[in-house]
Amino acid sequence: MPYAIEFWFEFGSNYSYLSAMRIEAAARATGAPLAWRPFLLGPVFRELGWESSPFLAQREKGEYVWRDMARRAAKYGLPFRRPSVFPRRALLPMRVALLAAGEPWMGEYCRRIMHLAWAEDREIDDPAPVLAALAGLAPDPQALVAQAGGEAAKAALRDRTAQARRLGLFGAPSFIVDGELFWGDDRLEDALEAAAKCG
Amino acid sequence: MPYAIEFWFEFGSNYSYLSAMRIEAAARATGAPLAWRPFLLGPVFRELGWESSPFLAQREKGEYVWRDMARRAAKYGLPFRRPSVFPRRALLPMRVALLAAGEPWMGEYCRRIMHLAWAEDREIDDPAPVLAALAGLAPDPQALVAQAGGEAAKAALRDRTAQARRLGLFGAPSFIVDGELFWGDDRLEDALEAAAKCG
Repeated sequence: MPYAIEFWFEFGSNYSYLSAMRIEAAARATGAPLAWRPFLLGPVFRELGWESSPFLAQREKGEYVWRDMARRAAKYGLPFRRPSVFPRRALLPMRVALLAAGEPWMGEYCRRIMHLAWAEDREIDDPAPVLAALAGLAPDPQALVAQAGGEAAKAALRDRTAQARRLGLFGAPSFIVDGELFWGDDRLEDALEAAAKCG
Repeated sequence: MPYAIEFWFEFGSNYSYLSAMRIEAAARATGAPLAWRPFLLGPVFRELGWESSPFLAQREKGEYVWRDMARRAAKYGLPFRRPSVFPRRALLPMRVALLAAGEPWMGEYCRRIMHLAWAEDREIDDPAPVLAALAGLAPDPQALVAQAGGEAAKAALRDRTAQARRLGLFGAPSFIVDGELFWGDDRLEDALEAAAKCG
């Protein structure tokens, strides 16, 4: 039995997009159980002393990231549009993701939100896009969105983010397999291999 | 005919080690001509506003890098020892590398220097290890090392480093194929693919 793979991600993270679109099928092919771990990257960056995405801190690197994204998306056959806003706020869809993390439709929900943000360059931190993404998946999207705006859901996402810090996470996507950290979409295959090996 | 692949690297860069050990065989397999481009990473980092390696700027990321290095080296079947000194000075072997960049034994020289630094945790910024690496390769190692200490060789490496900045390089290893920049050992395969495709 392969180990589980924990997928730590954030809708506002461009490399998380690449992994979120691929990971469910990839984990299924390996037989590794997949645990979705939405967490907020902003507070983690701020605690590490960065005001915003490290991609914004350095112009050359920042420009390179979008070229790299376009190439990587093409390699995976994923649509990609360079965002007009970066980083993009994602609080509401993230809170919904945490509430829905154990649902069988979690993967599809995440892919829909990611598609809005990274293929359509749309804002996602609003009830409308979140409700659209939940349509046909959640039994009561309105109730779920209302719940996501409540104090308990907010606290839960803060706790999850604090847990990310305790685990030593410093970026997204990150994968954890049997306590071992893998960072970056380009380590997804290594993480899956570790999950399959450790069985 | 595939495009050439330019390999921009520095002996003091750990991820450059992974690429330097693999690139000659990989390029040969693709048929892409390989151009060795040694440059100094330190001045580039300083111009970008970093005092030293970005891996030292952030503890979690820094620790992760060594874990990642160990895993990646194992994946490629390369020996690796976490260095007792980082970043390690490499001025003399870098100047020799620039002088030798067009020689048929350049690859073997680079692999020997890299092996000393990253598999044996040895200092490399001295005549002794450089002479050892040149043994049996260069017709007159002593003369080459003497030449590398001269003003012309120093200026040449400074010029090459300035060229790296003009090209927008911000880290190593970097690969350039037909004007397109690829950054990081984990993009070597993409760069080779681009070289093969663009033919």
